[in-house]
Amino acid sequence: MHFSEPLPLQSGAALSDYTLVYETYGALNADCSNAVLVCHALNASHHVAGSYEGKPKSDGWWNNMVGPGKPLDTDRFFVIGVNNLGSCFGSTGPMHNNPATGKPYGASFPVVTVEDWVHAQARLADRLGIKKFAAVMGGSLGGMQALAWSMLYPTRIAHSLVIASTPKLSAQNIAFNDVARQAILTDPDYHDGDFYAHGVVPKRGLRVARMIGHITYLSDDDMAEKFGRDLRNADYQFGYGIDFEIESYLRYQGDKFSEYFDANTYLLITKALDYFDPARTHNGDLDAALTNTQAEFLVVSFTTDWRFAPERSREIVQALVNNQRRVTYAEIDAPHGHDAFLLDDARYMSVVRAYYDKVWRQLGERVPAAQREAA
Amino acid sequence: MHFSEPLPLQSGAALSDYTLVYETYGALNADCSNAVLVCHALNASHHVAGSYEGKPKSDGWWNNMVGPGKPLDTDRFFVIGVNNLGSCFGSTGPMHNNPATGKPYGASFPVVTVEDWVHAQARLADRLGIKKFAAVMGGSLGGMQALAWSMLYPTRIAHSLVIASTPKLSAQNIAFNDVARQAILTDPDYHDGDFYAHGVVPKRGLRVARMIGHITYLSDDDMAEKFGRDLRNADYQFGYGIDFEIESYLRYQGDKFSEYFDANTYLLITKALDYFDPARTHNGDLDAALTNTQAEFLVVSFTTDWRFAPERSREIVQALVNNQRRVTYAEIDAPHGHDAFLLDDARYMSVVRAYYDKVWRQLGERVPAAQREAA
Repeated sequence: MHFSEPLPLQSGAALSDYTLVYETYGALNADCSNAVLVCHALNASHHVAGSYEGKPKSDGWWNNMVGPGKPLDTDRFFVIGVNNLGSCFGSTGPMHNNPATGKPYGASFPVVTVEDWVHAQARLADRLGIKKFAAVMGGSLGGMQALAWSMLYPTRIAHSLVIASTPKLSAQNIAFNDVARQAILTDPDYHDGDFYAHGVVPKRGLRVARMIGHITYLSDDDMAEKFGRDLRNADYQFGYGIDFEIESYLRYQGDKFSEYFDANTYLLITKALDYFDPARTHNGDLDAALTNTQAEFLVVSFTTDWRFAPERSREIVQALVNNQRRVTYAEIDAPHGHDAFLLDDARYMSVVRAYYDKVWRQLGERVPAAQREAA
Repeated sequence: MHFSEPLPLQSGAALSDYTLVYETYGALNADCSNAVLVCHALNASHHVAGSYEGKPKSDGWWNNMVGPGKPLDTDRFFVIGVNNLGSCFGSTGPMHNNPATGKPYGASFPVVTVEDWVHAQARLADRLGIKKFAAVMGGSLGGMQALAWSMLYPTRIAHSLVIASTPKLSAQNIAFNDVARQAILTDPDYHDGDFYAHGVVPKRGLRVARMIGHITYLSDDDMAEKFGRDLRNADYQFGYGIDFEIESYLRYQGDKFSEYFDANTYLLITKALDYFDPARTHNGDLDAALTNTQAEFLVVSFTTDWRFAPERSREIVQALVNNQRRVTYAEIDAPHGHDAFLLDDARYMSVVRAYYDKVWRQLGERVPAAQREAA
């Protein structure tokens, strides 16, 4: 979907025009009341569910959560996945030409925020005729978008599902993001963000950035369970190749990531993470930031998530309770750290399923009585 | 101290000859029974205590712990600090010439282990006429050396003080070390370890490595307390410079480190950390590994140390108890994470002081009665 009206950004800059790539699943009902927006995190995209014909291994990133008969049931809901601005999977981003210069934006692509993304998503909703979402849902950075929706467009969202997220990053979170950025920024192949023109990619930096990130997605226990101190060979190698299986795993993850992800996107998305702090403009008072929300909420956290720990989710819940909002909170005892929000866990899945059953019942109750009888 | 007899290493390699740089504090008594060896961690050196004349800011790295009247009292004990082999503060290391080639060792400097260091330290003790240490003490990687001493030279160590350490690194610990190594190894200025010949230093890699390491030395809470989300400027900068004070702090630490630390040393010392696992040759049974120890032990951990958590120290304590060894354990409720072992904390300091009082009393009891009366 192309948008030719400029999008003013939180930074004061603006995008003169832009494209949003999106996918939809299921059917929009007659009164456009069954739409659910699913927001992605750092390295995901609009491809939330299903797989592409003839493309094996092309499952959507939340395919276990979204689809026919799944917790977010596309037989009931019209689900939309949007690739965010600045990302590298089709929507306007740093690798696209800046219409003002005719050259790729590179590092000059404006630093966008969670709030900017939400405004762009709202315009997409306008175009699709969706006045109000039945729900906006996301995990991690996606959860921040779901939370921001409830504050920025309180009348346009009935439910907000905030999974494995936080009302703001901690100093330690920011520290990890900044080391990752420094790895990219100081890679000689980064060329101040204009690496496209040089025909290179700052793979070394991206690789290290991803390895750092990946450590923070897994729990200490899970890593111990999966890899422990398992050796690749029978004995220590006394060199700097691979000794431990965990090294092999992380290097592989880093290599793979550096093949497909854009370095400028990595930088700007981690900045969006760092900047998110809705309480900031309310003197740090999260209660005040959430005062104008009207949605009902599901907040989910995972016990071993040390990146966005349950304590952070509880802050959101407490602030919502203080505002007398309806909120359901589940703290799932899962071993997989932050990554748990993407994985199958029977209790997690059933909590989300039950919540969407409620959303669905509420929708049904809103259908005019005559229409219900006819059905 | 130069050693011309070859040192066989755990890897199967050997150092044909080598030099150990060391410092001593206090006086060795007549029966050479009051010697204490202090072992250093990743980036420290033989300069444990005191300061160099005319050099401001040259305090030893454990100057709060070691000195006249301090917990490890140099009016009582003869304290030795040794720079380990492969380090970059004077002892033979990667930046020194390999006698076989006449060129700097670089990455060809053999990967040494904690056990190799202990054997080298034992030779230094031989030269100094020290048959048995009153104590061997260290924090973090230094604690591993203190523990290894108790196993490798059970009759040559009366007390082992193992502070903020672990019997082996976890998968997560190894993961952080490997990312740091990858940052260095993939820095184009690393030149396969021969950067000395190129007149460059892989500063970018060292800087990122240190930033990663530094995050793991601090606790999440301490970072939140010290830096939180404090901004450098009044508002977000919407760029990749410094927004948050934590970024400024970490980049500064990284810059400083990259100015003085050797990249090959960083690689090999992190390998020594990864490889330490005394239970490994006993089918993972730490009890069995500690069976032949004769020393008494002080084990200290810090509640907010998530790098080497209290649980790891408790494993050591449990294994010692299972072997019916005398062990004192203190778990200090300190906010400063792994770094706490280097900082002043009244309870920590008084535990160590009380322990050395005991060591001192035991020494006195060993002085022949006639000599005691004459004194």
